[in-house]
Amino acid sequence: ENMCRNGMLEASMVFQGFAVYSIPRRTVPFNHVKSKRFQESDASGLSSLLLRDDIGQLVVGARGKILTLRSDDISKKTGEVQWTASPADKAQCQMKGKKSEDCHNFIKVLHSMNGGRMLACGTNAFSPSCDYLTIANGKVSLLGKELSGKGKVPFDPNQRFASLMDKSTLFSATTSNFLSTDVVFQKHGAIPVRTEMKRSWLNEPTMISINLLEASKYSDNGEDDQVFLFMTENAVEDWRGNLPVSRIARVCKSDLGGRRTLQQRWTSFVKARLDCPFGDAGSSALVQDVFLLQNQSNWKESIFYATFTSNPQHSGAVSHSAVCAYRLSDISTVLSGRFLTETETGSWVRFTGDEPSPRPGSCINDEARAAGRRTSLNLSNQHLMFARNHSLMEGVVTPITGKPLLVQSSTKFTKIVIDQVSAPDGQRHQMMLIGTESGSLLKAVKPQDEEGRVIEELQLFEDPLPVQFIELSQTGQLYSGTRNALAQIDARDCGRYLSCDDCILARDPYCGWDQIRGNCAPAAGASSWFQSLRDGDPSMCPPSLPTKLPEAVVLTINSAHFLPCRPDTNLPTSWRFSENILNPGPRHTPISQGLITIPSATDAGLYTCETVENIRGKMHRRRVIQYLVQVQDPSINARKLKAAGIALIVFLVFLLIGLCLLFIHRKWKKRNSEISSV
Amino acid sequence: ENMCRNGMLEASMVFQGFAVYSIPRRTVPFNHVKSKRFQESDASGLSSLLLRDDIGQLVVGARGKILTLRSDDISKKTGEVQWTASPADKAQCQMKGKKSEDCHNFIKVLHSMNGGRMLACGTNAFSPSCDYLTIANGKVSLLGKELSGKGKVPFDPNQRFASLMDKSTLFSATTSNFLSTDVVFQKHGAIPVRTEMKRSWLNEPTMISINLLEASKYSDNGEDDQVFLFMTENAVEDWRGNLPVSRIARVCKSDLGGRRTLQQRWTSFVKARLDCPFGDAGSSALVQDVFLLQNQSNWKESIFYATFTSNPQHSGAVSHSAVCAYRLSDISTVLSGRFLTETETGSWVRFTGDEPSPRPGSCINDEARAAGRRTSLNLSNQHLMFARNHSLMEGVVTPITGKPLLVQSSTKFTKIVIDQVSAPDGQRHQMMLIGTESGSLLKAVKPQDEEGRVIEELQLFEDPLPVQFIELSQTGQLYSGTRNALAQIDARDCGRYLSCDDCILARDPYCGWDQIRGNCAPAAGASSWFQSLRDGDPSMCPPSLPTKLPEAVVLTINSAHFLPCRPDTNLPTSWRFSENILNPGPRHTPISQGLITIPSATDAGLYTCETVENIRGKMHRRRVIQYLVQVQDPSINARKLKAAGIALIVFLVFLLIGLCLLFIHRKWKKRNSEISSV
Repeated sequence: ENMCRNGMLEASMVFQGFAVYSIPRRTVPFNHVKSKRFQESDASGLSSLLLRDDIGQLVVGARGKILTLRSDDISKKTGEVQWTASPADKAQCQMKGKKSEDCHNFIKVLHSMNGGRMLACGTNAFSPSCDYLTIANGKVSLLGKELSGKGKVPFDPNQRFASLMDKSTLFSATTSNFLSTDVVFQKHGAIPVRTEMKRSWLNEPTMISINLLEASKYSDNGEDDQVFLFMTENAVEDWRGNLPVSRIARVCKSDLGGRRTLQQRWTSFVKARLDCPFGDAGSSALVQDVFLLQNQSNWKESIFYATFTSNPQHSGAVSHSAVCAYRLSDISTVLSGRFLTETETGSWVRFTGDEPSPRPGSCINDEARAAGRRTSLNLSNQHLMFARNHSLMEGVVTPITGKPLLVQSSTKFTKIVIDQVSAPDGQRHQMMLIGTESGSLLKAVKPQDEEGRVIEELQLFEDPLPVQFIELSQTGQLYSGTRNALAQIDARDCGRYLSCDDCILARDPYCGWDQIRGNCAPAAGASSWFQSLRDGDPSMCPPSLPTKLPEAVVLTINSAHFLPCRPDTNLPTSWRFSENILNPGPRHTPISQGLITIPSATDAGLYTCETVENIRGKMHRRRVIQYLVQVQDPSINARKLKAAGIALIVFLVFLLIGLCLLFIHRKWKKRNSEISSV
Repeated sequence: ENMCRNGMLEASMVFQGFAVYSIPRRTVPFNHVKSKRFQESDASGLSSLLLRDDIGQLVVGARGKILTLRSDDISKKTGEVQWTASPADKAQCQMKGKKSEDCHNFIKVLHSMNGGRMLACGTNAFSPSCDYLTIANGKVSLLGKELSGKGKVPFDPNQRFASLMDKSTLFSATTSNFLSTDVVFQKHGAIPVRTEMKRSWLNEPTMISINLLEASKYSDNGEDDQVFLFMTENAVEDWRGNLPVSRIARVCKSDLGGRRTLQQRWTSFVKARLDCPFGDAGSSALVQDVFLLQNQSNWKESIFYATFTSNPQHSGAVSHSAVCAYRLSDISTVLSGRFLTETETGSWVRFTGDEPSPRPGSCINDEARAAGRRTSLNLSNQHLMFARNHSLMEGVVTPITGKPLLVQSSTKFTKIVIDQVSAPDGQRHQMMLIGTESGSLLKAVKPQDEEGRVIEELQLFEDPLPVQFIELSQTGQLYSGTRNALAQIDARDCGRYLSCDDCILARDPYCGWDQIRGNCAPAAGASSWFQSLRDGDPSMCPPSLPTKLPEAVVLTINSAHFLPCRPDTNLPTSWRFSENILNPGPRHTPISQGLITIPSATDAGLYTCETVENIRGKMHRRRVIQYLVQVQDPSINARKLKAAGIALIVFLVFLLIGLCLLFIHRKWKKRNSEISSV
């Protein structure tokens, strides 16, 4: 009893502080998830994913090869090209003391380039190399160009890195040497530009994500595009010195570096702390992945969605996770705020002197051009000296509304993708599709003036391995992978909501009830289709069909029985006896799996198990199962049997006596008649 | 199923990182705790506790009165003296907008003084006042001296504070004004000395504990006594500025303040951050209570034991707790290390200039006296100016071994007392007696090279209110209280260990097995007495008596039954079928409270439920309950009944036929005889 009590206690207490909804409303086990799958024969080694919707292909980087699958059905392989590390490279790799399983060519980078070509890079047994990839009339092949992969892909296949392809320019953030001591964030190409080797620029960073904000495309005054880098690093500004924190950094896309100072170095590199407040006060959650949702109508309102995990001091202690969202305009404000500067004692304080103009970190736009500043090469030496020593802002980037959209306990979020759904009500809903460390996918939303909630948890993969890739197609096909398996699902599938009540109560932006077809279906203009995302009000649902009859069970008096109740959701359950709520007592112990009962004669009757769902303070109860309970007393049966026996024997005896009497009487009559006849 | 699964998951995961033992080995419910109790008629209002072992009395401060109880049986009240706030004071208190329930005289301070007198102070409806208390031939009475209580006891009865009496000198740390804006740490008396009103000295502090270290008593070179103050306050040195952290501060007992600068202010006030690393990296746990264990043989090795709770960002989120221990010598090292100094930009950096000599914060000893420095009044003005601006050290005080002795999830520790137990093996064990926010008391130990573990959790109070007082007598009597109840228990009671196995496996330093009396008893020299604190090895136990017979149960085939198993510990349980471990399957679902089974004909047999305990990698299984299961098929019974019926009827019919034949035969013989006689 205690273990579970503790357990429950735990659960309730841990969730208490966060949204109660951070318990997924429903958990769909692996074998119930409708999906197409691709499983490598020699397991393991899947290392990158590229969706080519344009040619209906999913390109998969693996260990020593690149595969192509049909994007409409990934279980169908369309091609494969080998690219293994040479025996010499492998030998050397192991000679240098690397594990043999790491001494392979893991294809970690796959990017589309202008003209349909792709760039592919692999770790190549700790000697990174790249090549071009093409798919010509369905056949995938490598061009065999031996391009260096240094600084484009890590040497160590287990190391995190980030890269992004813009047209044909590669931006990457990764280690650039065998010992993986120096990490650089760079733009490749004719005039490469990189980060300065300076503790104040990058301090033992872990690279997470590079995102391109196409300001030029939407702005009206020739704004340069902005490249954002997300990472975690040790905070130089923290007096402890070695506290890992999350950062957002920004450079201007067309930055060419300085003329004398900062030659071939970013002149526009500025960064700030990225805050996602949850967990213990003073602690700093670590960013795990970022998804940029560009706002076409107003680019300054574009939003970055980021997953975070808490960072416990006890290794192996549980971590919690959250999703925070950041508005570009807020980020820009912080990045154009005050700088921090280093004192002679090595501590960091606000810079109060006057900053050079144009302000370091600002990108070129029409004004700048008008003022004759066309490239970073025009920047004064004094400006560059300042930029070199001042990359860290005083301000902290805080999330929209100041808190996470979603917090979940005892889970580690990995990747995130946002699917924007326009509901018929005209509103746009952001569906968060989140991968976890244990191979599951979460479908979550953040309703207005409500805590974020996880609508569904799909156990997408059989092995509880971290979800390393999520790609979403325009049509809502979701491709996801761990290091040894790929899965394809229809993210917008509504087939799991079997009843109208369930369909509406779930408040899944993807789904509503189709009154004509009588099923739960994706948003459709049809007048017969409705949903109730705000209130989850099922009153518009057709009267639910007569549910199946109660299960008849016969229980033995005073012996412990169990009435199972297993809803298909994670919602709490509650029991009724006839019509009244059944309160726990010596004879009735409701537990999460059902009801333990030690019935007395008076406990015969109708038992109903219901799920209880609280939506905006309104309670919704849905029947799961009913039992019609008879209570029997075995001792009574025994007595019945005995009684019957006795009755028969008595009857028998009387019968015999009867017969004897008859016999005697007849004999006696006979004798009389004889005597009289004498 | 899910809820509990989540729950269990939760528990296991949350504990994962910490000692698994931080789940108490046993939880003793309120009605099973052997205790003497004192319950106030008009509930609530208990506000202080003073144990007078010397006169066998427990003095209790309450709302508007002081009570005395017999220390050997607190259910026996020996005296009471009223001390209520005057109607005028109450009226004014409410007029000033205070809640009426706070406008009483809560007796918050009770201290013994030289000569048997006691000092008592009360909040007195937000106008604190003190008086002397005496117990003459069993009668408790107040002297009626109207002493001001300002700065000795808070105005607000709900506010935390700390105080300590040394002979007849009172040290206190509390607010000293009605608005509770200024908080001071001061020595009262002829020449009062207090803290300077300076953000760098005290920054919105919460006062926790004052402890006196009697160096003079044990040192050989006339060391002055040291007074330690524990508190939490906002960290000025943290760049965020408003992060609450734990602090340890120290002053010299005979500090008289400065002559011109720091007049009647501490000249020896130095403080440092107090670290107890658990929870999220970068976060700072908050100290809740401190117990000083003086080391008689080497005062420099005296140890401070402190309880901490984590400080979640989401109010209402769960907090975890820990106990950390600090060696005096480590503390001294940090307090005599480098100072922090404030830059013009308001940030705090290491002070690199040269410090005045004698070093600020150092206490007077024979050397100092020899050098002519007899009191703090001799200190130079320049020395005092420095001391005034430099109270915070750069170093951080870290716990022994660098980590907590004990961490427990989802619990808030309050008070702590250490009971030093000398086991016959000569070793000394520190039993940690810890109160919690929910009215329970934990008995915990930290074995060598093992995580700290909670041996027992006693639900000491019916209402789940915070444990506010714990006092321990020399004889092991423990007096504890919430605001509405007091309890007295024998901390060293071993009566709850009923079997030798349990007694030994619990590894309770208090207890061992007495082979002659055959019971679990406190340490005794007797050769017949043994314990096994390191390995919990029960092999020395006498063969356990034949346990009671298995319970016979008859289960119905294919219907769900429940076999309860409720151990008296929180240890996980495991089931056996006949002799083999029973693995969960469609027909058997072990849950924490017992076993859910849907038996088939083959499932008849002996079921055994055992607790499993892992001690240093060795598994110990102890039987909880056994069931001898018969499986019956009701349909078969029915058939039996029918069969019996039919048999009887058939028998009956044959009998009738038999009788008729007999009858006919006789008749026929008769006729023949008649014929022959003719």
